[in-house]
Amino acid sequence: MTEKLETPEDFVAARTSFAAYVKAKLGFRNYWYPATFSEEIEGEPKGVRLLGENVLLRRVGGEVHAVADQCLHMGVRFSRKPECYTPETITCWYHGFTYDFRDGKLVEILTEPGSKLCGKLSLKTYPVAEAKGIVFVFVGDGAPPPLAHDVPPGFLDDDLAIHGIRDEVKTNWRVGAENGFDTTHIYIHRDSPLIPGNKLMLPIGLVPQTKQGIECRDQSEPKGIYDKMAESYLPVFEATIGGEKVLRSRGLDGEKRVAADLSIWMPGILKVDPFPDPALVQFEWYVPVDVDKHMYWRVLGKRAQSEAERDAFRGEFHSHWKSLALAGFNDLDIWAREGLEEFYKDDEAWTKEHLFKPDACKVEWRRLASKHHRGIQPVR
Amino acid sequence: MTEKLETPEDFVAARTSFAAYVKAKLGFRNYWYPATFSEEIEGEPKGVRLLGENVLLRRVGGEVHAVADQCLHMGVRFSRKPECYTPETITCWYHGFTYDFRDGKLVEILTEPGSKLCGKLSLKTYPVAEAKGIVFVFVGDGAPPPLAHDVPPGFLDDDLAIHGIRDEVKTNWRVGAENGFDTTHIYIHRDSPLIPGNKLMLPIGLVPQTKQGIECRDQSEPKGIYDKMAESYLPVFEATIGGEKVLRSRGLDGEKRVAADLSIWMPGILKVDPFPDPALVQFEWYVPVDVDKHMYWRVLGKRAQSEAERDAFRGEFHSHWKSLALAGFNDLDIWAREGLEEFYKDDEAWTKEHLFKPDACKVEWRRLASKHHRGIQPVR
Amino acid sequence: MTEKLETPEDFVAARTSFAAYVKAKLGFRNYWYPATFSEEIEGEPKGVRLLGENVLLRRVGGEVHAVADQCLHMGVRFSRKPECYTPETITCWYHGFTYDFRDGKLVEILTEPGSKLCGKLSLKTYPVAEAKGIVFVFVGDGAPPPLAHDVPPGFLDDDLAIHGIRDEVKTNWRVGAENGFDTTHIYIHRDSPLIPGNKLMLPIGLVPQTKQGIECRDQSEPKGIYDKMAESYLPVFEATIGGEKVLRSRGLDGEKRVAADLSIWMPGILKVDPFPDPALVQFEWYVPVDVDKHMYWRVLGKRAQSEAERDAFRGEFHSHWKSLALAGFNDLDIWAREGLEEFYKDDEAWTKEHLFKPDACKVEWRRLASKHHRGIQPVR
Repeated sequence: MTEKLETPEDFVAARTSFAAYVKAKLGFRNYWYPATFSEEIEGEPKGVRLLGENVLLRRVGGEVHAVADQCLHMGVRFSRKPECYTPETITCWYHGFTYDFRDGKLVEILTEPGSKLCGKLSLKTYPVAEAKGIVFVFVGDGAPPPLAHDVPPGFLDDDLAIHGIRDEVKTNWRVGAENGFDTTHIYIHRDSPLIPGNKLMLPIGLVPQTKQGIECRDQSEPKGIYDKMAESYLPVFEATIGGEKVLRSRGLDGEKRVAADLSIWMPGILKVDPFPDPALVQFEWYVPVDVDKHMYWRVLGKRAQSEAERDAFRGEFHSHWKSLALAGFNDLDIWAREGLEEFYKDDEAWTKEHLFKPDACKVEWRRLASKHHRGIQPVR
Repeated sequence: MTEKLETPEDFVAARTSFAAYVKAKLGFRNYWYPATFSEEIEGEPKGVRLLGENVLLRRVGGEVHAVADQCLHMGVRFSRKPECYTPETITCWYHGFTYDFRDGKLVEILTEPGSKLCGKLSLKTYPVAEAKGIVFVFVGDGAPPPLAHDVPPGFLDDDLAIHGIRDEVKTNWRVGAENGFDTTHIYIHRDSPLIPGNKLMLPIGLVPQTKQGIECRDQSEPKGIYDKMAESYLPVFEATIGGEKVLRSRGLDGEKRVAADLSIWMPGILKVDPFPDPALVQFEWYVPVDVDKHMYWRVLGKRAQSEAERDAFRGEFHSHWKSLALAGFNDLDIWAREGLEEFYKDDEAWTKEHLFKPDACKVEWRRLASKHHRGIQPVR
Repeated sequence: MTEKLETPEDFVAARTSFAAYVKAKLGFRNYWYPATFSEEIEGEPKGVRLLGENVLLRRVGGEVHAVADQCLHMGVRFSRKPECYTPETITCWYHGFTYDFRDGKLVEILTEPGSKLCGKLSLKTYPVAEAKGIVFVFVGDGAPPPLAHDVPPGFLDDDLAIHGIRDEVKTNWRVGAENGFDTTHIYIHRDSPLIPGNKLMLPIGLVPQTKQGIECRDQSEPKGIYDKMAESYLPVFEATIGGEKVLRSRGLDGEKRVAADLSIWMPGILKVDPFPDPALVQFEWYVPVDVDKHMYWRVLGKRAQSEAERDAFRGEFHSHWKSLALAGFNDLDIWAREGLEEFYKDDEAWTKEHLFKPDACKVEWRRLASKHHRGIQPVR
């Protein structure tokens, strides 16, 4: 299907095939989303906003539980001043309505002992899963699928150690996803401090080849799209205008590789393999918070067969990769997204773009999401 | 009528009985409202916003007068730069349109002496009353009722000395009123510095008794609701969850009393008697400013038979009660209201609450206001 | 036509004659507007917002060119991080789309050399004219008229030297224009530091005379209105209220003149002649930026026959007039406009004003603009 996306007319014609994606301002419902790092919820309950829903998380007896972060009585947020008199309950700071984290039930009202409301009201609860030091919450209805259906292939592998950071970014989540799954946006990274002395090279641009590397994985879970950069593009190391050289890639010295595989997975997760080093793989989530905000998760994975290797990667992550790659490199992506928001906050934007050939992968992503999503999160 | 408000179903059924209250986002029209303390308008004219209307106040020859704070010429606010060349006039800073405070008439235009507009235009004037060191303005149409109709019983008593403060709070006025007229919100005050060493005790909560203390006063003016706390609730001094004690009231030592009467009066005035001490009574106004703001008046009254007693109370108020009771205790109520605003700014909120038995008093207040109000202030 | 604007009823009846002006929230289309001072675009390209349109300016080989400040690919602004690899091109910071400033054509995409999009897409270009150290942009469609049609008479005279400043003001542009073309707003300037020791006198107000000085110039270009202050008004130097003197003009000592001519020209340019000194003339533009913002240009002109005279005026402007007259005097006008915005941001305002006789000139301006404009800039 990808061979049709070459001319401007092809891109215009493709617009009708991703209408659902344009509607999904608040993301797709009935998926697992990362909510916090495990280490963030060791003490107090923690409030998190996902797809416009407010969720309160707490670890109860080793297991994390999640309930709606809003008292049923008069609608205030528990997280404004969380009160936990027992390990498994949350008490509302206003009138002492007390709920059990495990099933959401109202078990006590401290200001009216013996209230007949007890046992009759329940907070919405959210399924929770924990893996790789990350707490995932299922935002949706009914029984959730296995977590493995909603994370990129390989992420849950036993020998993959994971470390990362998360930051709120003031743009729609799709602006985040499309900044990530965009082969030619590497242009903005040409002066990155990551490049010199690193074993991965970054071209200025990429020219699509006849042998397209876009592979759609929509017959099983997780569903996603591969854009095999190494085989489907010719890298560009020099830019010219009117035949004159104006720019040259930095850091071309020595033996280098490019990131071979770029892929994106439902409900909006990027995988860059390898990156930012031949021994590493990067995952990124763009979790909708509100229509105009997303939580940007930057996570690196490395194979580690022993505790010593895991410790070594932890050290390397904190001393080196966190500042050099995640912040040093990807903060520029945050800056780029902020520049896109003005245009894409308008639904008409999707009919005003002028896409070029390397954008085929973005359009395939929009199509996959439109065709296979499990539900669109309603706005308000 | 109050016996019907016990079960969740009763509360749901009651919603239709307070539809007018839900509409009264900007408060009720045709009532007296406190505008400033008398001592605030000794010099320059003062601009105040009440129920979305801008009013300019000035003392002219001992008596306070009020006019609309907007020049009829091009709509600017006088209070932006008030100019008073004579004791009884306000001159607009822009073109010198000059009005008489006493009848609102345009008497002169400084930039065009002899203008034919003089005498033909008039600012809206507002009735003003002054009592207990507070300047009241009648926001409405036609002749105002006596001030005594629109303040709680006893407030105007000759021997009652009054002192207080006022602060703007960023929530709707009803959120203020219902935070005040709420017997079980005392839960938030359990750690108040006011409790230890004070002669009033504060339970953690209250259990409604068969003998209800809610009394509706709707046959005369002022109209209001009493919730007689001392006789209609059983105080709760220990909170339990699953049978286990988790919390105990502080300051239970010695001989103590509770506030006996809690009452609320049209157009939105609380009276707590006695409070914060057996010899004091507290009054609170929640005056609508805009849909999302109210002026919170906290006022204490004490019987004083002589000038010496009045002086003593003035000293006691400033050195003790102002910081300990008004700020120390009620600032927490401001914090609570701010947590309610997100929910209640939506008209749907009133159909999504899950009220419990002690909330019967709030619902009676909403009903009284809906049935007996003199007019709803239109929004914009 | 002006004799009809005397009574309040005349002003009410006049409202129907300026309906187009009320609609022109974003100004009038198909006119030349000042965009920047010439000295502001000597280096980097510069982004400017005019009538809600984003324009990017750059000097290419001595001549300034202007294109739409938005990449056609994904809608980002070039001015966020302008990249110019050659003198005549702008390259988008995101994917390297490169356009020629002179005709707007997409000439290269740095990330996909040889892209078939090149030559097929073009940015909108804007006609540019440069005069008196100011870069003008034509905001409209089709071929522009000569610049002389859209500036006040005399502005382009060979012997007129020009210096000025520009500042963004947070009100609609019409609020700016009507604050300028308003003879009686001089009342706000009565304490200006410009008055004492200056050769121009400022009355407190002005009384319209039988011999009206309003002259409408609508048979040729530029189109505008004169309000000949010296001959059509009686200056007022003392203000009275109820027969009592309350205010007297300052700086009445010695031989003085008033500004003789006040005029306003399409698409919204004031000329005050002479001002702020008998040897100077002041021009002001109120260029729409957004519905609630305008760029306020304050410009002084002086006849200068030689390079030496031009140098002298430059020195005098920077050492004296810039701070004393433009800032010292006209900053108060900015303050006044800010006070008008609340009222005039509502379209209903124009039906709620109560204009007085000296406002006839404002109404004539609204009528001229409504009758002769070349197009209304659509909002959004």
